[in-house]
Amino acid sequence: MATVKKKAAKKAVKKSAKKATKKTAAKKSAAAKAKPGKYVYVWGDGKADGDGSMKALLGGKGANLAEMSNIGVPVPAGFTITTEVCTYYYDNGKKYPKTLDAQIEENIAKVEKVMGKKFGDLENPLLLSVRSGARESMPGMMDTILNLGINDEVVEALATKTGNAKFAWDSYRRFLQMYGSVVMEVEAEAGEHHDPYEVILDEAKEKAGVKDDSGLSADDLREVVEKFKALIKDRSGKNFPEDPRAQLKGAVNAVFNSWNNDRAIVYRQKYGIPAAWGTAVNVQAMVFGNTGKTSGTGVAFTRDPATGENVFYGEYLIDAQGEDVVAGVRTPKPIAKMAKDLPKSYKELQVIRKKLEKHFRDVQDVEFTIEEGKLWMLQTRNGKRTGFAAVNIALDMVKERLIKKEEAILRIPADDLSHLLAPIFDSKAEKAATKVGSGLPAGPGAASGKIYFSAEESVAAAAKGESVILVRQATSPEDLRGMIAAEGILTTEGGASSHAALVARQMGKVCVCGAHNMSIDYDKKTLTGNGVTLNEGDELSLNGFVGSVYAGEIQSSPSQVIQGLLENKAAAKRSDTYKKFMELMSWTDKLRKLGIRTNSDTPEQVEQAIKFGAEGIGLTRAEHMFFEGNRIDSVREMILADDDEGRAKALKKIKVFMKKDFKGIFKALDGRPATIRLLDPPLHEFIGTMTDEQKQDLSEKIGMSASDITKRIHSLHEENPMLGHRGCRLGISYPAITATQVEAILEAAAEVQAKGTKVLPEIMVPLVSYARELEIQKQVIDETADEVRKKLGLKKSQLKYTVGTMIEIPRAAITADEVAEHAEFFSFGTNDLTQTGLGLSRDDSSSFLPAYQDAEVLSNNPFASLDQGGVGKLVEMGVKGGRSVKPKLKLGICGEHGGDPDSVKFFHRAGLNYVSCSPFRIPVARLAAAQAALEEKGLARGEVS
Amino acid sequence: MATVKKKAAKKAVKKSAKKATKKTAAKKSAAAKAKPGKYVYVWGDGKADGDGSMKALLGGKGANLAEMSNIGVPVPAGFTITTEVCTYYYDNGKKYPKTLDAQIEENIAKVEKVMGKKFGDLENPLLLSVRSGARESMPGMMDTILNLGINDEVVEALATKTGNAKFAWDSYRRFLQMYGSVVMEVEAEAGEHHDPYEVILDEAKEKAGVKDDSGLSADDLREVVEKFKALIKDRSGKNFPEDPRAQLKGAVNAVFNSWNNDRAIVYRQKYGIPAAWGTAVNVQAMVFGNTGKTSGTGVAFTRDPATGENVFYGEYLIDAQGEDVVAGVRTPKPIAKMAKDLPKSYKELQVIRKKLEKHFRDVQDVEFTIEEGKLWMLQTRNGKRTGFAAVNIALDMVKERLIKKEEAILRIPADDLSHLLAPIFDSKAEKAATKVGSGLPAGPGAASGKIYFSAEESVAAAAKGESVILVRQATSPEDLRGMIAAEGILTTEGGASSHAALVARQMGKVCVCGAHNMSIDYDKKTLTGNGVTLNEGDELSLNGFVGSVYAGEIQSSPSQVIQGLLENKAAAKRSDTYKKFMELMSWTDKLRKLGIRTNSDTPEQVEQAIKFGAEGIGLTRAEHMFFEGNRIDSVREMILADDDEGRAKALKKIKVFMKKDFKGIFKALDGRPATIRLLDPPLHEFIGTMTDEQKQDLSEKIGMSASDITKRIHSLHEENPMLGHRGCRLGISYPAITATQVEAILEAAAEVQAKGTKVLPEIMVPLVSYARELEIQKQVIDETADEVRKKLGLKKSQLKYTVGTMIEIPRAAITADEVAEHAEFFSFGTNDLTQTGLGLSRDDSSSFLPAYQDAEVLSNNPFASLDQGGVGKLVEMGVKGGRSVKPKLKLGICGEHGGDPDSVKFFHRAGLNYVSCSPFRIPVARLAAAQAALEEKGLARGEVS
Repeated sequence: MATVKKKAAKKAVKKSAKKATKKTAAKKSAAAKAKPGKYVYVWGDGKADGDGSMKALLGGKGANLAEMSNIGVPVPAGFTITTEVCTYYYDNGKKYPKTLDAQIEENIAKVEKVMGKKFGDLENPLLLSVRSGARESMPGMMDTILNLGINDEVVEALATKTGNAKFAWDSYRRFLQMYGSVVMEVEAEAGEHHDPYEVILDEAKEKAGVKDDSGLSADDLREVVEKFKALIKDRSGKNFPEDPRAQLKGAVNAVFNSWNNDRAIVYRQKYGIPAAWGTAVNVQAMVFGNTGKTSGTGVAFTRDPATGENVFYGEYLIDAQGEDVVAGVRTPKPIAKMAKDLPKSYKELQVIRKKLEKHFRDVQDVEFTIEEGKLWMLQTRNGKRTGFAAVNIALDMVKERLIKKEEAILRIPADDLSHLLAPIFDSKAEKAATKVGSGLPAGPGAASGKIYFSAEESVAAAAKGESVILVRQATSPEDLRGMIAAEGILTTEGGASSHAALVARQMGKVCVCGAHNMSIDYDKKTLTGNGVTLNEGDELSLNGFVGSVYAGEIQSSPSQVIQGLLENKAAAKRSDTYKKFMELMSWTDKLRKLGIRTNSDTPEQVEQAIKFGAEGIGLTRAEHMFFEGNRIDSVREMILADDDEGRAKALKKIKVFMKKDFKGIFKALDGRPATIRLLDPPLHEFIGTMTDEQKQDLSEKIGMSASDITKRIHSLHEENPMLGHRGCRLGISYPAITATQVEAILEAAAEVQAKGTKVLPEIMVPLVSYARELEIQKQVIDETADEVRKKLGLKKSQLKYTVGTMIEIPRAAITADEVAEHAEFFSFGTNDLTQTGLGLSRDDSSSFLPAYQDAEVLSNNPFASLDQGGVGKLVEMGVKGGRSVKPKLKLGICGEHGGDPDSVKFFHRAGLNYVSCSPFRIPVARLAAAQAALEEKGLARGEVS
Repeated sequence: MATVKKKAAKKAVKKSAKKATKKTAAKKSAAAKAKPGKYVYVWGDGKADGDGSMKALLGGKGANLAEMSNIGVPVPAGFTITTEVCTYYYDNGKKYPKTLDAQIEENIAKVEKVMGKKFGDLENPLLLSVRSGARESMPGMMDTILNLGINDEVVEALATKTGNAKFAWDSYRRFLQMYGSVVMEVEAEAGEHHDPYEVILDEAKEKAGVKDDSGLSADDLREVVEKFKALIKDRSGKNFPEDPRAQLKGAVNAVFNSWNNDRAIVYRQKYGIPAAWGTAVNVQAMVFGNTGKTSGTGVAFTRDPATGENVFYGEYLIDAQGEDVVAGVRTPKPIAKMAKDLPKSYKELQVIRKKLEKHFRDVQDVEFTIEEGKLWMLQTRNGKRTGFAAVNIALDMVKERLIKKEEAILRIPADDLSHLLAPIFDSKAEKAATKVGSGLPAGPGAASGKIYFSAEESVAAAAKGESVILVRQATSPEDLRGMIAAEGILTTEGGASSHAALVARQMGKVCVCGAHNMSIDYDKKTLTGNGVTLNEGDELSLNGFVGSVYAGEIQSSPSQVIQGLLENKAAAKRSDTYKKFMELMSWTDKLRKLGIRTNSDTPEQVEQAIKFGAEGIGLTRAEHMFFEGNRIDSVREMILADDDEGRAKALKKIKVFMKKDFKGIFKALDGRPATIRLLDPPLHEFIGTMTDEQKQDLSEKIGMSASDITKRIHSLHEENPMLGHRGCRLGISYPAITATQVEAILEAAAEVQAKGTKVLPEIMVPLVSYARELEIQKQVIDETADEVRKKLGLKKSQLKYTVGTMIEIPRAAITADEVAEHAEFFSFGTNDLTQTGLGLSRDDSSSFLPAYQDAEVLSNNPFASLDQGGVGKLVEMGVKGGRSVKPKLKLGICGEHGGDPDSVKFFHRAGLNYVSCSPFRIPVARLAAAQAALEEKGLARGEVS
């Protein structure tokens, strides 16, 4: 927990440091208005003691209410008792400053004056709400009391004044219920299974013969009120206080006490909120939207939060309270209809909409109430939005000169850019569909198709023109062709970084993985979830944004950005989304310092990546193409060879297709650099899954008995293959494997160069732990290069390359100074570095990571977002060590983290030269890199103006 | 390579720093005698220009020859051309200092005078040897020329003088052969498969009709000499130089040039010898042991190097040259017989023996030659010896006041102490046995028995009184009973840290593991190696010192130390070895600062460990007792449970036997502290190997269908179990597993305490990566402890324990400051820290570690001796981080490295409080810890006087 606290403390310090860079004006206003000895800050009637900058003193809610009042938005008057009072209360044995009572009394009078009502009055009574409000929102953690100020006399006055006795008595019983439980602590006792207030209400409903609370008459409610009072007296031994001022004291006290209830403490620990901050208490005049046909209530966004379109978006109800809109008992009307129902209020609301957007310079999510024709704004906050909306709104606002480009860039959550790239479901159709399971949303997008349980069947079905969903417990490189053929991939095992997820993201495939609540029977070819069993060929739909799995087909299509960018469709290019996306991307490139490369293994992927903005390849893996056609036969022959001669024979065949691949990649790169990783995976991966039939088939091809093949497969099996005979360990055991790859790379480079295309191969040695490993492999590479040059009659300057290494083992990061002596570049392999640094298998961790997130050990999956406090320190050691020997050493990162915004920002701060990620993540990385550069200047979201 | 060089440079600096602490006298003498402009240092006739301290200038060989001469030992006279000349030669375009020739000439005269012979003389010619000699020995890397100074005239003089024409001509042809190839570079050319000199010799032998060189007559050899000369002329275009002085110049030149030949460069890189050191050249008078019945040659040790007994030990031959003793063509005689054959020389040799031991204060390994009754010493150096001899000699020499206790301690290689603990084979019987394979020497000692291929069969056979060798491809916890029952363990897979090796060492069992050249057929129950196939029940013998495997039985017995210490046998206690061992151990305890604990899992092991000197338990693992009796049923029931209730039921049963175990351990400890590690291994380990029969059996016991058991086993399978759901991850997923263990520990502690024995449980949480994991587990432990106390009516002070963690994941080491906030102690789990820090699976690395040692990536197995440059840095980070928060944090280490001397010394330097190792390694650890404390004071072997 201490870690979390520390981080929070650091964050707080950082934040305040950032605040210090803000406009001096705002700072002065906050400082100037916070006066010593002033414990209560009033707002209302177009002015306020405080303002929006005073969140530390007034809490978020209080500061925003003051701000709205200041800019002339109609807000029910009220006052904030400051967080200083909370601190004083806890520092002084739960006592209050002496002048507090007088200050409260003084400000009640101000509120009464503004609202034209009087607290406790028997003609026109003012009712109050009492709410908590800390510096950062802690939704639902602390206490709230509404309708405060009613008693046996006031309720009658309220009934008379409103002409609505039922409303008056219902408000009274609600107040008693809240006050009794929160302030007087009369709640369900140990052994009591039902809330005692609800028991009384249920009895009343039974007696009246109605089903809902709303069915109770004023008289029924009067009886309920009597019974509530008796319950409170009976259980607490005290009378419910009739005096409104005593009620207020009790309520304020309860809210301050709730700062230290169990829920609040746990919440603060979770989000790293210091206990010393304390909460403010907001006391505000109640307004009612349920007092007749000229009253109402609603919620709205100043623009459409789904599309970002600049239209007023929301819904309302006539003669209703706030919770009725949300509860769904009555169907709210679209906001536009308000123009007819309540034309005056609607006009007013339109003016306020513009005013708030202009003032807060962002889309606002507002709540409002109309009480007898009078519009009151109850809340405003920045509205949450989809990725589409985020881009649209940000770019529109730049055009509208509401915000600058930098602010637009900071405001779009980089991850949400992927929404613009992924195919989408129709939302109504999705709601209607039968959900049969859920897993991790590993490849964003939406896909429907027929399910198949093997790569072969998927390929065959796709060849027949079927839309395919490949369903596997987990995927391996052998499933690659099936994955390519499929529209979507579903696995029941593995996490967000499993093979399925990794490949799916790279290919931009829709993928839901680790759907543990579903099961596969390969023999029967069935998929079962939520009681539904699907057979091979049945339709299934995947929502890769959220990880939902549905039976049946749901319609989807590629996004406009993809249609424009990759499919070069003119119509899509004319779309607003496409244009905005392209404009945003062009801005990011001017701001970012990090280079952006791609992890791509085929010429097609490279072409895509370049369209997405890649400036080169950060990682290409020869082995990802080993399963194409019958290449795997040669690979297997090489692995199964029991002497150098046999290995050489197979390597010769492998070299042919490797060279062809590299030529394609170099051509596609058209002069951009390419980091090529030498063979990395454990050899068993290429042979471990062979069936008897495949063994027999291979046996005939390579002249080795099937039983010898089985023996060799057995001898290559490893207990922990991730920590086994792989990476440069293969190259050290079998230098010919390294040499063959280098020949293929350099011969390909020479041939492509000869046709006028520049080639910059960066040969990367994987899994180095010891500097000596790199030294040995570099020697093999250099010697092979000399031979290739000699053979081709080229000078050293005519066939260039560099040699570098992955930093993916803790030892290499720790001894980076030694490793750097033999390296021209480093590329951090953060997937393996996470596995080894945390002692955590990517493939096996999904079984307990959920428990870890529940127990708050982890807030993120460390394979998706870099563990900055641990693995990040290894990266920093690697940077420091490497640059201590070679100050200009080129540093990159090619793990999956290269496409994760938080990680990209970390790599920027760590001083890397570039990040590399799968093609479809490149826009995200570009945006995150630009954000990182802005943040380095001390800018933060909402602070550029 | 740079790393190696750097280390070497550091080592060199360190060494010279150490040298600086040596007696000032020696330092002065070395400095005083090294005069500027003096390039040649002569020795002979009881004096010398240099001495043994001048190794940097004179090289090791030259300095030692001077030293022997100085103390009056008869050494053939000679002189050293210094290493400065070598440096000058390379710094000045292969030219020599101007005064060198004159200095050489001057010293030839001195040698001539001492030897009474003249170089190039035609009556009594002096022959010379010319040898390299660097500061550190580089055996065989540089060039040597013998018999220099012969030509067509001298050979006749030699024949006349010795009356042995064959000897003279044979010397001449040998000289030509050496000089021709080394100096004149006439060697086999490209495409020539045979050495041209040997071709000529073969032709001569064919012509003479003899098989061996020795069969050739003087006349035959004369012809060979002519042909050699013609060959040299023909191929080099130059005449062989008849002038002895020209010969000498050529030879010296060749030796200096050989400092930079390929072999020497590679060797220097391997052992980190700087090129700048250069080599010296030693020119020495030849003496001949093959000139008749009053001549001879021999090798000897001043004490028996096998037993350490203070007897003269060696062998000799009359009328022979040095290489004849080694070559085995003639059988040498035991040295004692020399008293009859050559009484005068023998007496002289005895005097020299005493003199050398007294002077060098250690056992000497000498070579000598007697030329016509005159004894010459050709070499002396410290003798290599067995562990038995090392202990005997060191302790005898302390008694003899030759050395101090500190020197005795520094002189015994700590690892060799294990020789005193292990059973032994009769060496003659071993030589006669049929070797059928070899593997890693994993458990020292010697064992013979009948082979069995499963734990059950081993147990059954042992129960019948058979001596058993358990033969497995690899072992698992399930084999434990079989291992206990066996005398020795042989595996065909796995390395020095495999389960088999680990358990064998802990139990002190003889073990050979990873015998890859042998194969097992479990179905046929056969073991095959070296063409021999053994069946179940056949006799096999294992030499665990060297890793040899033999068919048949070879007799062995426990060592005297074990008989005395563990079996309390009076006869053994009276033995000299036992007494010396005990005395040595008592010395170490006074010197060492590191505490010594044991890794033990049973009361019996704890009792043994205490007898070996353990001061507590550093690691006890509950799971190591899970396979005893039918306990495994409850463990499996716990693992297979699919809800909390089922798990609780099984845990209740487990608690019963765990508590019993802990009570036994606490009693055995008798007040010493015990670090108890909570359950660590992946659960699959306990169920993955179940047979169908076992599943059926368990199904009936726990009421779960066999197919459900199979499904659950399948679902628990992990790709990389070492990085999977294990350690504290289990405790976080299932807090009840942690709570049950804590209940068992604390209830056991309370019951043992109640009977008056102090108990100090230190509860250790395994596999922590995040501080939060430890925080969560500590909370479970503390809450459980409160419940136990409440139940037993004990106050906090009446039932104490501490909570700490393993540091075995890089992240924990890196974030040790955060982890330490929740820890009362750290214990470095260097096995796992090595696996994760190097990304290297302990079980899988044996397939490529040999290639790594060949390629000089590793000099040691990192699972046996700590990788100080990488994993060691993680340990240092852990120490620094932990102590930054808690300056007095108790730090220990419980990996296998706790019993490795180099690692123990590292842990001493790193500031740990204690090391923990398996019982049989405790004496080694005690000695190494004492050595570490001495080394900290700047003392080194041979430097205490």
